Amino acid sequence: MRTTALKFGGSSLADASHFQKVSSIIKSHEGRLFVVASAPGKRSKDDVKVTDMLYECYECAKSGKDHRASLSLIRQRFQSIVDLLGLSFDLDSEFAIIDRHLSSGPERDYMASRGEYLNSKILAAYLDYDFVDPATCVFFGMDGHLDAERTNSTLGKALAKSDHAVVAGFYGTGFDEKVKTFSRGGSDVTGAIVARAVKADVYENWTDVSGMLSADPRVVDNPDPIEEISYKELRELSYMGASVMHEDAVFPVRSAGIPINIKNTNSPDDEGTWIVAHRTNDAENGKVVTGIAGKKGFSSIRIEKAMLNNEVGFAARLLNIIASAGVSFEHVPSGIDSMSVIVDSEAFRHSRSRILERIQDELGPDATIVDTGIALIAVVGVGMVYRRGVAAKVFTALAQADVNIRMIDQGSSEINIIVGIDEADYEKAVNALYNAFFR
Amino acid sequence: MRTTALKFGGSSLADASHFQKVSSIIKSHEGRLFVVASAPGKRSKDDVKVTDMLYECYECAKSGKDHRASLSLIRQRFQSIVDLLGLSFDLDSEFAIIDRHLSSGPERDYMASRGEYLNSKILAAYLDYDFVDPATCVFFGMDGHLDAERTNSTLGKALAKSDHAVVAGFYGTGFDEKVKTFSRGGSDVTGAIVARAVKADVYENWTDVSGMLSADPRVVDNPDPIEEISYKELRELSYMGASVMHEDAVFPVRSAGIPINIKNTNSPDDEGTWIVAHRTNDAENGKVVTGIAGKKGFSSIRIEKAMLNNEVGFAARLLNIIASAGVSFEHVPSGIDSMSVIVDSEAFRHSRSRILERIQDELGPDATIVDTGIALIAVVGVGMVYRRGVAAKVFTALAQADVNIRMIDQGSSEINIIVGIDEADYEKAVNALYNAFFR
Repeated sequence: MRTTALKFGGSSLADASHFQKVSSIIKSHEGRLFVVASAPGKRSKDDVKVTDMLYECYECAKSGKDHRASLSLIRQRFQSIVDLLGLSFDLDSEFAIIDRHLSSGPERDYMASRGEYLNSKILAAYLDYDFVDPATCVFFGMDGHLDAERTNSTLGKALAKSDHAVVAGFYGTGFDEKVKTFSRGGSDVTGAIVARAVKADVYENWTDVSGMLSADPRVVDNPDPIEEISYKELRELSYMGASVMHEDAVFPVRSAGIPINIKNTNSPDDEGTWIVAHRTNDAENGKVVTGIAGKKGFSSIRIEKAMLNNEVGFAARLLNIIASAGVSFEHVPSGIDSMSVIVDSEAFRHSRSRILERIQDELGPDATIVDTGIALIAVVGVGMVYRRGVAAKVFTALAQADVNIRMIDQGSSEINIIVGIDEADYEKAVNALYNAFFR
Repeated sequence: MRTTALKFGGSSLADASHFQKVSSIIKSHEGRLFVVASAPGKRSKDDVKVTDMLYECYECAKSGKDHRASLSLIRQRFQSIVDLLGLSFDLDSEFAIIDRHLSSGPERDYMASRGEYLNSKILAAYLDYDFVDPATCVFFGMDGHLDAERTNSTLGKALAKSDHAVVAGFYGTGFDEKVKTFSRGGSDVTGAIVARAVKADVYENWTDVSGMLSADPRVVDNPDPIEEISYKELRELSYMGASVMHEDAVFPVRSAGIPINIKNTNSPDDEGTWIVAHRTNDAENGKVVTGIAGKKGFSSIRIEKAMLNNEVGFAARLLNIIASAGVSFEHVPSGIDSMSVIVDSEAFRHSRSRILERIQDELGPDATIVDTGIALIAVVGVGMVYRRGVAAKVFTALAQADVNIRMIDQGSSEINIIVGIDEADYEKAVNALYNAFFR
């Protein structure tokens, strides 16, 4: 039997009909034993996610206003699921607890977590699986990040007691012993740590699309789905905006060697995307580029200084100024008498004057030039860097599309080329690259 | 009258016949008034430069051996010049001073400087120009670098007293009041600071080639000469090994807006290469690439660490480790979960274990991979980065030559693309790029 950990996203558990689909998916394979559930998502385009309703309810209570109307709307969402599924589930006492919490100093993370908590508890009842509250077995460390080892050990023990269970996604217990959530989409991480804890053979991540696409469908018309992608490729594409899963969800399963299968709840027979340690259709076997992703909103800070390259430690001092302002950088192209730092425009905007002042005072540049409006595009494929002609294809495609290149960074990993261009050229550039490698 | 500062290299002043050529060059234009002379260079392929003879003589005296035979050989070089030019020049007293210096605690820089000192003094006598000893007007600061402002002011006043003068190249007075030399080839710097001090209209740098070549003639067969190059382009090409002049020679004239003309003493009518602030034949006017240069001998230290990009300050810490070991870096390609640093292999070799140990201890990487045997090639041309299609041409040429690309860095200056390749592919790659842009 292939032990499978499954995570269902909010769009897969938005209402009772979704619960029925999910149940039939789970029951169709005997190994589908450990399930992570999200809070109910949108039932239609204009609907509101339960998590957003919970945040709103929290804000209401926090600001001293009456939260009861807001809370009642949330209850209706769950009530409708429970009623339509014909479950006898005690929502009264659950909502009484939440109401008391709201009246006596509400906590933002605790409130946000109630969507997953209730949805998972209802799903467990519906499936007749055990319910596991991650407040008892998912832990964050002092640094605010997941305490992976403590979690793995405690969660492993908790789930070992169970033949099949539903674990609520998205939260755990913080270092201060209060409920603490992951960032948005964090149920993906819960799914991954459950997969690791039960030593699953596969981690199925169920959502509302049949896997990952090789380019952003808002930019490229009907892009190919990705059949297979390596963890590393996924990391690069996710980071550059091709989001299919929370980016931290990769690590727990990657270290355990568990493949991830992105599946579509509304089309469960589609193969979806396999996320694996090593692609079988890699550059050697013909598939050079796996995907193309990108983001707008970057700026370049270029520092010109004569004989800069004679100053050992100059770059460290420069990056330290930027790090001290809490801004992370994307790339550091360097020349002989110049050095640039590519940063997120938004993060930079807030500390711009402080950063530029310190650069002026501490580094004595001849000139400091800030360029905003840069978009970054990553062309990603394991082994592509060692395949001759890939860079030529990238830059020929961009030249033919009349796209000006502002920055190139390749060389830290063997799996991507990152190109900086003007934001205005972004859509044109992505399409040119897509056509070059996929059409 | 165009006031001209001239610097003659050692190969232009190797023997008496060279002195005659130099004299006729100087006398052929009335503005050629301020001359910087090097020590006598090689008269033939197997000859020894006087500066090297001086270093050897110093080592001999320093180690307590009898230096007289060694010094006598040096005297013969100058004697032959003086005799053949028919000058009455008192070499006896000059060499008596050097001999006394050698017998009473010799100084390395002082000894090295005697080649320029004597050659310039002889040239001044031959031309009937004043002789100016830079020990009195070229100063180094506490940091060991040229004290540009103090030098400019003192040298300016010294030369204002003179209608025409020969200044010895290569040395000045250190912060400790002792004679201190520039690094090898430093007479180029002296020429530049003289040009600035006399507010010359042009700085003529006379050597044994008719200007700079657009590629290394040891790699590319008969490359085109460069007619015009900007200071910035020169800096990039020089740094990457296309040496035509000491790299620090650019700054004094660049800030003063004085163009440099590289000329050939053996073919004085050739136009040579003009080094200017802004090219007239730049990318807009048709000349995209000015030159191609490169160097072997680089290594890449690649650090892989999951979620590295979440660690604000990681790069600063990494570069600080490398800077603390006294190693400068060339490029820092960065990915999502990895970051590389390209360093000089030789410099890295000496501190390799210390650097790798600190990386291991302080940065906790998942893996650290050192790759040696990397060559860097710079394709240089002002404005080329903003010309569409240049990157495509670069990478198509390399792909067609079957060259694998290990690293790309573009974006800090608008004038180059730097590509890292395997050392074994170096000659092939340079030729492919040369053919793409020049043939």
